[in-house]
Amino acid sequence: MSDTPAQAPSDRTRVVRYNWLARYDRQTVEAILDATPLAHVGCMMNGVPFVTPTFFWREGDRVYWHGSTAGRMFKALESQDICLTVSLLDGLMLARSAYNFNCNFRSVMVVGRARLISDAEEKREKLRTFVNSLIPGQWERLRPAHDKEITATAIAWLPLDEASCKLRSGPPEDDDEDYAFPAWAGVIPIRYQVLPPEADPRNTAGIEMPADVSRFTLG
Amino acid sequence: MSDTPAQAPSDRTRVVRYNWLARYDRQTVEAILDATPLAHVGCMMNGVPFVTPTFFWREGDRVYWHGSTAGRMFKALESQDICLTVSLLDGLMLARSAYNFNCNFRSVMVVGRARLISDAEEKREKLRTFVNSLIPGQWERLRPAHDKEITATAIAWLPLDEASCKLRSGPPEDDDEDYAFPAWAGVIPIRYQVLPPEADPRNTAGIEMPADVSRFTLG
Ligand SMILES: Cc1cc2nc3c(=O)[nH]c(=O)nc-3n(C[C@H](O)[C@H](O)[C@H](O)COP(=O)(O)OP(=O)(O)OC[C@H]3O[C@@H](n4cnc5c(N)ncnc54)[C@H](O)[C@@H]3O)c2cc1C
Ligand SMILES: Cc1cc2nc3c(=O)[nH]c(=O)nc-3n(C[C@H](O)[C@H](O)[C@H](O)COP(=O)(O)OP(=O)(O)OC[C@H]3O[C@@H](n4cnc5c(N)ncnc54)[C@H](O)[C@@H]3O)c2cc1C
Ligand code: HEM
Ligand code: HEM
Repeated sequence: MSDTPAQAPSDRTRVVRYNWLARYDRQTVEAILDATPLAHVGCMMNGVPFVTPTFFWREGDRVYWHGSTAGRMFKALESQDICLTVSLLDGLMLARSAYNFNCNFRSVMVVGRARLISDAEEKREKLRTFVNSLIPGQWERLRPAHDKEITATAIAWLPLDEASCKLRSGPPEDDDEDYAFPAWAGVIPIRYQVLPPEADPRNTAGIEMPADVSRFTLG
Repeated sequence: MSDTPAQAPSDRTRVVRYNWLARYDRQTVEAILDATPLAHVGCMMNGVPFVTPTFFWREGDRVYWHGSTAGRMFKALESQDICLTVSLLDGLMLARSAYNFNCNFRSVMVVGRARLISDAEEKREKLRTFVNSLIPGQWERLRPAHDKEITATAIAWLPLDEASCKLRSGPPEDDDEDYAFPAWAGVIPIRYQVLPPEADPRNTAGIEMPADVSRFTLG
């Protein structure tokens, strides 16, 4: 397989619409995945391609997510190909024509066959990585996880083999003849804002907030 | 059908996991849908339940979204049931145990059979509503849409008949025996931030930004 950024890893991941916004290189895939912990997973259940919002984390060339071992998604996903999508809305773009309205965004779609992790020690290790990917060192500060909690937790993963990205940034693009039209055009930038952490009123006296908690960012 | 908030509109929309967070009443559905223009649509295409990030808007008891009449989703969606999910991440919740980590969120899943709008005048009217739902009055300020632009645009809609919500807010919930454990617990609030609009450098001289542009909010 070639290194060319414009080379899709498979037919079903080749961007067709607005394909000049497409990227397939691992660096871009990872940069978008690492910018947010929120994904939407598409999985056929009960005859419907349900879209489930879920946290995810990345380790090397895999994305992981977790839930209940009793959850319907974790029962359904090993017998079908699924899609995990991550998207970031970076701005609303106002053009001079309605047709050229658009948005600035970054998105990744990963498709493939997910696998579940069954080994308890491996699950514990993955959950540690999950927690610490959000707040470094936090796992070690917590009440240690009970075995039955690990048992109750399902962890799925998808390889990043079939991933595609789309990215749009910058000002609006109007048709040449429309630039003279007297409508205001521009971008309204949008991003996530992380507000100061709020301590649980039930925290025991004298507990200090770990510095890593206040360093949490996303977007 | 009963007015009880806890009454799901159908079997496949009845929340099973963490069902104490469920709501099905129209007021809650609309409040969440009206808080953001971004949805993720699940549609089976090419054997995969693809999740497509897309703008949507609500009119009464329907959600609408748009794209290319040549797009694969608009060709696929009338022959299957699909799912449109809207989610808002409101905060990261740190508990004293990893198992009780969670997030504050609002989400809606709408399932059903989508329909396409074919009538050109109806499409034009819907697109006007779409643009003006983001920036009131903006459609009237734009270069009028050409007929071929309307023809190139597909619009799909789903009824809100089968919609479910999940909402979580407030501080973390730990097991009783864990409240004495000396780990910092609390919430990191997250929201969308809308930054000041940036004018297109190619705007014609003397064009002023409409006041409604600077009033745009989401979340
Ligand atoms: C925040 C946001 C808002 C959007 N709003 C709209 C909207 O209102 N209307 C609209 O038409 N489109 C919108 N898009 C783009 C949309 O997600 C699709 O890219 C587009 O609709 C084309 O879909 P398709 O299935 O026809 O693509 P195709 O190009 O036919 O898809 C082929 C392959 O390209 C890849 N691909 C397609 N889309 C994406 C993507 N977004 N990210 C990564 N890989 C992708 C996948 O591997 C897919 O299998 C939005 C995207 C984002 C991130
Ligand atoms: C921002 C965010 C992050 C999340 N992170 C995680 C995570 O990391 N792990 C995890 O397990 N779950 C997470 N969830 C919850 C997740 O979306 C599901 O609700 C949960 O996983 C149960 O899925 P299920 O298919 O087993 O649900 P079931 O309860 O079996 O689903 C039955 C029906 O309930 C309704 N329903 C289910 N989930 C939702 C929802 N979110 N919104 C509206 N209606 C719904 C649908 O109609 C569905 O058909 C997150 C939700 C949000 C909004
Ligand atoms: C109101 C604000 C609007 C926003 C935020 C918006 C946003 C978008 C986005 C993000 C895309 C996807 C581009 C891509 O694939 O990367 C898109 C596609 C499209 N939009 Fe809009 N749009 C808006 C209004 C309109 C209107 C009013 C029309 C028609 C008059 C229109 C016609 C189209 C068409 C035809 C496509 C498909 C392009 C293609 O795949 O070739 N849009 N829009
Ligand atoms: C790291 C941060 C974590 C976050 C942000 C998080 C978030 C969530 C969310 C939002 C849900 C869905 C609840 C619902 O359905 O409304 C969930 C479910 C679940 N989480 Fe986590 N979680 C985290 C870590 C963990 C860890 C470390 C474990 C195990 C030790 C765990 C075990 C579970 C289980 C078992 C469920 C399923 C609950 C059920 O459906 O009954 N989580 N988590």
